[in-house]
Amino acid sequence: MAIKQYAVIGLGRFGTSIARRLYEAGQEVLGIDINEESVEDAEPYVTHGAIADSTEEKALTALGIKNFDCVIVAIGDDLQASILTVMLLKNLGIKKVIAKAMSKRHGQVLEAIGTNWIIYPERDMGERVANQLLSPNVLDYIKLSKDYNIEEIMVPTKMVGKNLRDLNIRAKYNVSIIALIRNSEIIVSPSPEELLQNEDLLITIGNRDDLAKFSGLE
Amino acid sequence: MAIKQYAVIGLGRFGTSIARRLYEAGQEVLGIDINEESVEDAEPYVTHGAIADSTEEKALTALGIKNFDCVIVAIGDDLQASILTVMLLKNLGIKKVIAKAMSKRHGQVLEAIGTNWIIYPERDMGERVANQLLSPNVLDYIKLSKDYNIEEIMVPTKMVGKNLRDLNIRAKYNVSIIALIRNSEIIVSPSPEELLQNEDLLITIGNRDDLAKFSGLE
Amino acid sequence: MAIKQYAVIGLGRFGTSIARRLYEAGQEVLGIDINEESVEDAEPYVTHGAIADSTEEKALTALGIKNFDCVIVAIGDDLQASILTVMLLKNLGIKKVIAKAMSKRHGQVLEAIGTNWIIYPERDMGERVANQLLSPNVLDYIKLSKDYNIEEIMVPTKMVGKNLRDLNIRAKYNVSIIALIRNSEIIVSPSPEELLQNEDLLITIGNRDDLAKFSGLE
Amino acid sequence: MAIKQYAVIGLGRFGTSIARRLYEAGQEVLGIDINEESVEDAEPYVTHGAIADSTEEKALTALGIKNFDCVIVAIGDDLQASILTVMLLKNLGIKKVIAKAMSKRHGQVLEAIGTNWIIYPERDMGERVANQLLSPNVLDYIKLSKDYNIEEIMVPTKMVGKNLRDLNIRAKYNVSIIALIRNSEIIVSPSPEELLQNEDLLITIGNRDDLAKFSGLE
Amino acid sequence: MAIKQYAVIGLGRFGTSIARRLYEAGQEVLGIDINEESVEDAEPYVTHGAIADSTEEKALTALGIKNFDCVIVAIGDDLQASILTVMLLKNLGIKKVIAKAMSKRHGQVLEAIGTNWIIYPERDMGERVANQLLSPNVLDYIKLSKDYNIEEIMVPTKMVGKNLRDLNIRAKYNVSIIALIRNSEIIVSPSPEELLQNEDLLITIGNRDDLAKFSGLE
Amino acid sequence: MAIKQYAVIGLGRFGTSIARRLYEAGQEVLGIDINEESVEDAEPYVTHGAIADSTEEKALTALGIKNFDCVIVAIGDDLQASILTVMLLKNLGIKKVIAKAMSKRHGQVLEAIGTNWIIYPERDMGERVANQLLSPNVLDYIKLSKDYNIEEIMVPTKMVGKNLRDLNIRAKYNVSIIALIRNSEIIVSPSPEELLQNEDLLITIGNRDDLAKFSGLE
Amino acid sequence: MAIKQYAVIGLGRFGTSIARRLYEAGQEVLGIDINEESVEDAEPYVTHGAIADSTEEKALTALGIKNFDCVIVAIGDDLQASILTVMLLKNLGIKKVIAKAMSKRHGQVLEAIGTNWIIYPERDMGERVANQLLSPNVLDYIKLSKDYNIEEIMVPTKMVGKNLRDLNIRAKYNVSIIALIRNSEIIVSPSPEELLQNEDLLITIGNRDDLAKFSGLE
Amino acid sequence: MAIKQYAVIGLGRFGTSIARRLYEAGQEVLGIDINEESVEDAEPYVTHGAIADSTEEKALTALGIKNFDCVIVAIGDDLQASILTVMLLKNLGIKKVIAKAMSKRHGQVLEAIGTNWIIYPERDMGERVANQLLSPNVLDYIKLSKDYNIEEIMVPTKMVGKNLRDLNIRAKYNVSIIALIRNSEIIVSPSPEELLQNEDLLITIGNRDDLAKFSGLE
Repeated sequence: MAIKQYAVIGLGRFGTSIARRLYEAGQEVLGIDINEESVEDAEPYVTHGAIADSTEEKALTALGIKNFDCVIVAIGDDLQASILTVMLLKNLGIKKVIAKAMSKRHGQVLEAIGTNWIIYPERDMGERVANQLLSPNVLDYIKLSKDYNIEEIMVPTKMVGKNLRDLNIRAKYNVSIIALIRNSEIIVSPSPEELLQNEDLLITIGNRDDLAKFSGLE
Repeated sequence: MAIKQYAVIGLGRFGTSIARRLYEAGQEVLGIDINEESVEDAEPYVTHGAIADSTEEKALTALGIKNFDCVIVAIGDDLQASILTVMLLKNLGIKKVIAKAMSKRHGQVLEAIGTNWIIYPERDMGERVANQLLSPNVLDYIKLSKDYNIEEIMVPTKMVGKNLRDLNIRAKYNVSIIALIRNSEIIVSPSPEELLQNEDLLITIGNRDDLAKFSGLE
Repeated sequence: MAIKQYAVIGLGRFGTSIARRLYEAGQEVLGIDINEESVEDAEPYVTHGAIADSTEEKALTALGIKNFDCVIVAIGDDLQASILTVMLLKNLGIKKVIAKAMSKRHGQVLEAIGTNWIIYPERDMGERVANQLLSPNVLDYIKLSKDYNIEEIMVPTKMVGKNLRDLNIRAKYNVSIIALIRNSEIIVSPSPEELLQNEDLLITIGNRDDLAKFSGLE
Repeated sequence: MAIKQYAVIGLGRFGTSIARRLYEAGQEVLGIDINEESVEDAEPYVTHGAIADSTEEKALTALGIKNFDCVIVAIGDDLQASILTVMLLKNLGIKKVIAKAMSKRHGQVLEAIGTNWIIYPERDMGERVANQLLSPNVLDYIKLSKDYNIEEIMVPTKMVGKNLRDLNIRAKYNVSIIALIRNSEIIVSPSPEELLQNEDLLITIGNRDDLAKFSGLE
Repeated sequence: MAIKQYAVIGLGRFGTSIARRLYEAGQEVLGIDINEESVEDAEPYVTHGAIADSTEEKALTALGIKNFDCVIVAIGDDLQASILTVMLLKNLGIKKVIAKAMSKRHGQVLEAIGTNWIIYPERDMGERVANQLLSPNVLDYIKLSKDYNIEEIMVPTKMVGKNLRDLNIRAKYNVSIIALIRNSEIIVSPSPEELLQNEDLLITIGNRDDLAKFSGLE
Repeated sequence: MAIKQYAVIGLGRFGTSIARRLYEAGQEVLGIDINEESVEDAEPYVTHGAIADSTEEKALTALGIKNFDCVIVAIGDDLQASILTVMLLKNLGIKKVIAKAMSKRHGQVLEAIGTNWIIYPERDMGERVANQLLSPNVLDYIKLSKDYNIEEIMVPTKMVGKNLRDLNIRAKYNVSIIALIRNSEIIVSPSPEELLQNEDLLITIGNRDDLAKFSGLE
Repeated sequence: MAIKQYAVIGLGRFGTSIARRLYEAGQEVLGIDINEESVEDAEPYVTHGAIADSTEEKALTALGIKNFDCVIVAIGDDLQASILTVMLLKNLGIKKVIAKAMSKRHGQVLEAIGTNWIIYPERDMGERVANQLLSPNVLDYIKLSKDYNIEEIMVPTKMVGKNLRDLNIRAKYNVSIIALIRNSEIIVSPSPEELLQNEDLLITIGNRDDLAKFSGLE
Repeated sequence: MAIKQYAVIGLGRFGTSIARRLYEAGQEVLGIDINEESVEDAEPYVTHGAIADSTEEKALTALGIKNFDCVIVAIGDDLQASILTVMLLKNLGIKKVIAKAMSKRHGQVLEAIGTNWIIYPERDMGERVANQLLSPNVLDYIKLSKDYNIEEIMVPTKMVGKNLRDLNIRAKYNVSIIALIRNSEIIVSPSPEELLQNEDLLITIGNRDDLAKFSGLE
């Protein structure tokens, strides 16, 4: 993986988490915040930390921001600072500007001024939590299309001790079993003779409604 | 799906997003916030909205909180209110209390006082964003185990126009193709004769390092 | 003149001045401010006054804002409110949105989100005052092009008592006299025999540099 | 033009705009503000910048204020500071003190204590904007007297392609055409044969009511 | 004594003290303050109390301020409100406006805008206290001219038991004894035979320096 | 006059006025305030200025407060600081502590803890102003006893041009004329032949009611 | 026990605790606080609750404070309110006024103005906690005189199983055993034959130093 | 007594009192507060003083907190800081953590996270004061069990001058006299012939109800 230069502006919990993951993956990360304490707290997780007002052109150019491949504007609560910072970054010619939106309208403004990727972390995370509550057997999922998902589902109790052939899941539930996780081991395309065991996790693919029915079994 | 009763305490962006998803899935949702405006803003997304100080026992019992299956404490910034609310809910005998943690230490306190599920939304969402940046070809993923992932990957340009048999991806990259998404259609277990097309998405399973190499191809 | 419907959002000194002039010219003017006192103070100068948060869609639609021909966003200091209000007005389909910009960058954001006319009142008024100081004999002016102005100039003392023919201003200063103001009377295209009197005002047209030399005479 | 010494007290948007225009015209400009950041922001546009409380006699005399030809008090929101500063400047013997008034009553106080020129920038700029809205074809104007204006008017569509003789504007509308602007070129006293073209601007002189009718043509 | 109508604006300790004394002398007193609590506290000492912002013309005219013989502006700390109130009162045609000045410059502004009597209570009271400290034997005094005082002086111990003829104070100290206060009785022009007693108070007239020497005796 | 050492704690307008008068009379004056700016402003009027929290024993002893003859506590608005400071000064053994009281109850506390002289400057000054308004002809006065005053009164218009014998003021008004001030000259015990002139000031002694009637003449 | 009337002013934790204990002992308790919420919280523990500013004479007399046997001023942080309240209560003739002191100097002022009992709860409680830490075997104690204590001491491990006669504690440690607590039973003046058991508590009387040595045994 | 190392976090009145008592008993005491002034004020009463934010792991470890035998968290008003500090101390492995609780719920949280000793100083001190009021003759007491107390009681007036044999207190009141305090002298197990004197204090043991009756005698 090529090393890239990232700047993260706004070192709250969200920004710091991004910075940390990038930094731990070996990337070069500049962390910027207007608040000294936030910069100090983030220092173990960034290549460089800088205290700066990101709405000031002089401040950003002094940090050499023009050379960065990607700038993430993770400013938490100050909508005005978020917008002015993105505007300034686009003026400075930054190719890839990612920004956190606090509301739909904020997102619209960010889009109009040229933000390349707009993220709604609280909204998206909230949906993930709600989905987990609604389908407690579904541990994780990928939305493939409007209708299809891949879902990681805890094996229904009543299927434990039976083999896949007899269960005939595809025919009965219109759901395909792609893989099986047993004691942190992965069994890709498990054989039809495979006996399901307690605490197995099934990786399934299918229509969302069919999957909901399947994961709702007890 | 059985209808359950959820209460969401703290109607910021995160709490409102949870409430909305649950409500739109047909669940009964009580939304509580100490701030009148927040309750008003959330009203279209909850069954009932209530202005209340969730650290006051009288206030919560007046709302009949004891009858709820699950209470989500999504209080944003007031660590003290978050802790006292969870403490009170456990005193009142709520079975399932979910709470948002703002820091590792906050999470420890929440755990010590009996919170059933502790969520770090900004941290988790930050990691997702960073992962996306690190592997721009990977659109989504499920972490199956410490080592294995399912990943949704954009087809590498150089593979376009070739069939899966010739590409022999499993042998060369130690990665299995589970499914293929083409124009929002899903092709599960694609045939070896399948020609990859531009903008196809590959659903792959494999060791995380192998997947990283594969998704890094251009 | 046809009667139009104007809304002025932000009833500070600038907004109130716009509202008042429009209202006194017989237009229908809705004055909106988030602050009760500002609305009360502006009430003699508007058709209707309303206390509302202009960043709230419900508030603006309740006021029937969609039917207005033109909305002026004269919000004074709250850059965020200014931007969100304009964004909302464009979402609501308002044809003509005019907004006051507080800085160059604010102006850029306003332009990106579709503001139809952006005004910098302090900057423009500051320039007018400075120009007046630089050319105290020039009472008012129109900027015709990058190089040409019409200027209203106090007659230089040394020309008093002479006629225009003898003064031969066009030849000597490359400046044309379009009109003459004497005791609030206007003499358009004054005759060459006209004797200049003390306190006459000359309406001149010419190249800016030539005019500067001419108005600098004593 | 002789070089003069100006001091601008209050480096908000209005004061900075005055300072900048004077400075760019080659004048010596001292910029004063109580706020360090404002002084820094204005520094590219002034000869010297100083952080000082303009209500303190010691502070102003230390800056040699007595030697300035003209002091502009552009203090933004602090009416008390504005009044005390002007009072102090007059005590110090400054000949020409210009001050921004925030309200009619503030203007009266400024007048009573000897301010030489009182400016109402928001009010005046608001009127200019409203006038432009009321007469969208009038791009700029000079108020010559209570009744007469010079106005820069976009050529009415129906006159395009006709010559001035045939249009006979003076007879029909009681308005004189002084000059014509075409592609940023100025044609003073255009010949009667001149054919009006699309996007021509007419420089007109006349009674305000007559001009209003003329500029209202389509 | 004729009954007059007084308004006291600003019901702090100073304003309330004025209002109370006038009210107890049978005058009609309107007490005005922007603060509800101050008005309530002053209510026992005024004919009418009113909560009003004295910088608002509507507020003052609604109280019929134009009919008052004399308005005392005893506003405590808000220099701006003090100035604007006086300006407004003069605009409304009040004949006698008295105002408390907080500083010399404030006093100058008050004078420039037409205040009829300007009072510096802290400064004057401070001087009285200091004078008392400097001359502890002088209980009270009237400043008659630049050089002369009447002073109420405690009898020097060494003069007790002697008569005025023998003491010959006028000759020795150049000070005249106008009266004598003994046990709260007044003896005007005491006879030369009068024996001075312990605790007598002498009412003296003379040159300030002579008096200082005399009151300094022990 | 012996030189004494005074400390003034609280350098607002009242405290500064005391300090200044004492200092100008040649006394040694230590000025103390918790606020740096107040100390700086008072520095021209004190022998030494010190920034200190007068409720801290260490701070006061470091300033050698124990050696002062008299300490004036002129603290303006902080009742608590006023009380604690006096308490501390009495603990430290200061003989003469003078304090400004802000209310009757504050005065009671000050008395209970041993304050030697308690002053109510606003109340006393307010009474002086009110008295002046009630008796505009009385320029100054000394309260001799519960019933008797000395008053400085402008000569009633109708007495101008008459001599004292004919006027027979003592018989008619029960008021004695002690002295006469004419053009800043003092005439003690004026002769009965003395003709009263316009703008003469009469120094009178008498019963307060009689004086009120006399000074009310026109 | 006779029923008395108590008023507790200041319903923080300390005041509420007093009020509650008195109320539960059947006394009549009026709880007063300036803060509505504090009064509401204390309502289950008082006969009557009242929101009032205890520095206002009208407020206290309206509550009939004069009829109370004893008033406890438990005001938490506002030293000024504490002092003025006590002053007012003494003015109103309350016989027994108890007040919490926040510092030594505060205590001195409270004493000077006639407070009958002054309490330092944090100081005293802090000492109790420290004593417990210093002598962990001493569970509680009464200070009898400067030198003597009664102390409740856990039995030293090495004495378990022995009788009092053999232990001869009085002779060896100069400490008398007054009583013995065993399983919540009290044995007054235990017989010399009594065998000490594990977890016995000894009630001892003696000189503080002797007791310290004895309780320090293991 | 062995010397131990104590840290006291939070140097308000309660924490300082603990620190002082420990320090004066010869223990090593580290005093910590986030506020510089509090640390300075406590410095005479601690071995070392440190300004630190006790919720920061780095800050506490830098102070070597891990080596302390016992840490007292006496944080006054900041419930959040109190909880996070205790959590951190337990994470760091401190054996004995003592904390002040501000409310019952706070106490529950402190208990859940492992606090070793939880103190409610205001509540406990309030109860002591109320007890004293309820039984004014009881000067101090030890609660021996649910039912039994030792109490220090002022001798009832009617018993003065009688001997203990005749009074026969044990029989009449079911109360034992353990000791007698007379002029600060202690008489343990007083002889039956002992005559009770005025101002004697009786140390009694008995059932709480019996003691209440006895101490209620006059």
